[in-house]
Amino acid sequence: MTPPRQYIDAHRGELLADLDQWLRIPGISAQPEHHGDVARSAEWFAEAARATGFPTVEIWPTKGLPAVFAEWLSDDPDAPTVVVYGHHDVQPVDPIESWHTDPFDPTVDGDVLRARGASDDKGQLLFHLLGLRAHLAATGRTSPAVSLKFLIEGEEESGSPNFEGLLAERRGRLDCDVVVVTDTGMLAPDVPSTVTGMRGLVVCTVDFHGPDLDLHSGVFGGAVPNPATAIARLAGALHDDAGRVLVPGFYDDVLELTGDERELFARVPAVDTEFLTVAHSRALAGEQGYSTLERIGARPTAEVNGLWGGYMGDGSKTIVPTDAHLKLSFRLVANQDPRKIAAAVEQFVAGHTPPGIDNRIEAAIQQALDVPLVFLGVGLPDDQIHAPNEKVSLPMLYRGAEATALLWENFARLGRAALAQDAIE
Amino acid sequence: MTPPRQYIDAHRGELLADLDQWLRIPGISAQPEHHGDVARSAEWFAEAARATGFPTVEIWPTKGLPAVFAEWLSDDPDAPTVVVYGHHDVQPVDPIESWHTDPFDPTVDGDVLRARGASDDKGQLLFHLLGLRAHLAATGRTSPAVSLKFLIEGEEESGSPNFEGLLAERRGRLDCDVVVVTDTGMLAPDVPSTVTGMRGLVVCTVDFHGPDLDLHSGVFGGAVPNPATAIARLAGALHDDAGRVLVPGFYDDVLELTGDERELFARVPAVDTEFLTVAHSRALAGEQGYSTLERIGARPTAEVNGLWGGYMGDGSKTIVPTDAHLKLSFRLVANQDPRKIAAAVEQFVAGHTPPGIDNRIEAAIQQALDVPLVFLGVGLPDDQIHAPNEKVSLPMLYRGAEATALLWENFARLGRAALAQDAIE
Repeated sequence: MTPPRQYIDAHRGELLADLDQWLRIPGISAQPEHHGDVARSAEWFAEAARATGFPTVEIWPTKGLPAVFAEWLSDDPDAPTVVVYGHHDVQPVDPIESWHTDPFDPTVDGDVLRARGASDDKGQLLFHLLGLRAHLAATGRTSPAVSLKFLIEGEEESGSPNFEGLLAERRGRLDCDVVVVTDTGMLAPDVPSTVTGMRGLVVCTVDFHGPDLDLHSGVFGGAVPNPATAIARLAGALHDDAGRVLVPGFYDDVLELTGDERELFARVPAVDTEFLTVAHSRALAGEQGYSTLERIGARPTAEVNGLWGGYMGDGSKTIVPTDAHLKLSFRLVANQDPRKIAAAVEQFVAGHTPPGIDNRIEAAIQQALDVPLVFLGVGLPDDQIHAPNEKVSLPMLYRGAEATALLWENFARLGRAALAQDAIE
Repeated sequence: MTPPRQYIDAHRGELLADLDQWLRIPGISAQPEHHGDVARSAEWFAEAARATGFPTVEIWPTKGLPAVFAEWLSDDPDAPTVVVYGHHDVQPVDPIESWHTDPFDPTVDGDVLRARGASDDKGQLLFHLLGLRAHLAATGRTSPAVSLKFLIEGEEESGSPNFEGLLAERRGRLDCDVVVVTDTGMLAPDVPSTVTGMRGLVVCTVDFHGPDLDLHSGVFGGAVPNPATAIARLAGALHDDAGRVLVPGFYDDVLELTGDERELFARVPAVDTEFLTVAHSRALAGEQGYSTLERIGARPTAEVNGLWGGYMGDGSKTIVPTDAHLKLSFRLVANQDPRKIAAAVEQFVAGHTPPGIDNRIEAAIQQALDVPLVFLGVGLPDDQIHAPNEKVSLPMLYRGAEATALLWENFARLGRAALAQDAIE
């Protein structure tokens, strides 16, 4: 048996060679001209996972760009199951003139490797593959001590618009005891807000049907109910001017933050500027009286995900439309019961349906993966992950590989029951 | 020269033969399986207009079903120009079992002709063609005494959703001194509300742009401005709960109805039931304190013609969308200045654009055809125009033909200036 560190030291060249190949693929998810590269990037990681020994490797298509799923079950049927989350897409490189080297021609300079994606997130994913090989070498096992499910998405750098849909669609494949997040750099390292992705969720589609056909608004407008106006009034009534959700009973079971918790939140370094940059937004918004971190980490929300109805083409078409539709999602926090919220939303919709409009509402409850999270990122604050001249510290990657090799052994030793109860050391 | 009545009596057979042909085409605009028939119906009328002598006959396509335009200019350059409005499409025939004869096999029974469309509107259009031939025969003219422009739409029975767009698109071809409406049966004979089609109009498209890309609402929701929520709040703020438009200044120049006018409106036979049937609506709606006729005839309105943004597909996609859009139209009444209203709407939109949302508004003013209207329908209240067993009284058609033959002479005698000033006798 070779101890993990010794194995890793002896196999650094593999990590570097892999990085050099993968980092040359400019998989920029935010730029449509690079979507072919994102697909190639997914294929590359899938092949690397196969080469590492994963028996099951699948490309998972989404409504947008593909994710990779790689599964290697432990031969111990009682072993805990770990989902490792990461992403294979990268940030754009603008302004390109600020780069000292070609962002897609990886350059090693002493302990530093420079390239777009070196730290976020390709470097962090490849130390996992090296760490897994080290784990097997160190333990003499032919399968890992824990069952591993890598879920590597391809749209993290463009807002993860399809990630929740993917989780819902593949829920049956993602049972686990713990989630390890490789990419902790989304807001700032160690910011607890990353947990928000796991808030409970109620989604619904509301259909409003008015007159049985599109009507000339010159003859009928102002005298019959308009479903597009009605659905806009419904969506517009979701929040008050202070950003609070107006669905009756919505906040009844919400655990309010204690003074201590709010103090802890306030101690987190300010993230607003980085948050605006990542969100490509020109302003913050939300429930008055709460900080950005509190809004996304501790407060329930209501969001309009989509709406449509009537004429959507060029110019004008002066109609009272026959139909209008609305897609809503509600993020819940601890103690809120999704069933209760779904029922409250249905009542709210009924109460905002005017006479002469037929409504239909389909509400779905998406169960979160109710398991502990571990943040296993080794990115450093000066890695410039969303800026020119992104770099990664190679010693940090080797340390990460060693940490992951040891983590699987620790998880296996702790066992499933302890993982469910305890926080992770 | 043959007096019109004598010509018409001698040529009744032509009217009957034409009706028999045209009424066999089941041009039901509300039923997609009959849209090919609506196109055939347009072609049939175009051919009949050519046979009558119109030198210019065109099929005008729309975003939906085609209209027919037939133009015959007077050789007198000072002659008034008349637009004759009608429609070539017909109502559905359900419930078919209530018909005593086949709705598309025209049956003459004494003075009555039964078929779908006999009265509404094919009979009324064909008496115009016969009347025009009588007019030429009676005057010995080779062109009519007035310049005639027939505009015959194909979607009147399905809400005229594209008629306003057609008018705007073809505005340059439709200059005229007076409009003659052949189809007065829409609400009830002689109901002045038919005038509403000529109210002034301001239309606009509003674009809201939020974050530069669709964002995962689990990570960003509740902390960045959502353009779909914002545009719904804008549309939802257009009316108060009493149906009054909340754009500041909207009612400033509105001529309020006098007590006498309201009394006149109140004397019109109740139209609500027929209105609901024609509109295929399950309820009336609108500005509180006004009747249906007042709402569509004398009150300005704001209508959502369309809206869209974010995810519109199956299932859910939990995003904060990057864009949302809204199409609005505002019907104006006498004394309202479309430019002033457009400016007020722009200000209203700006005032409802939250921080972090970029707005863009394109407002267009559509000038009404500001000319007198003449209702020249000969349909009788028991014609069953939207019910089984539609019929038309043949003597009424002959009388209509004679009236129209005489009307063109009267219009020519009155001259353009008098038409512009006077009401029509």
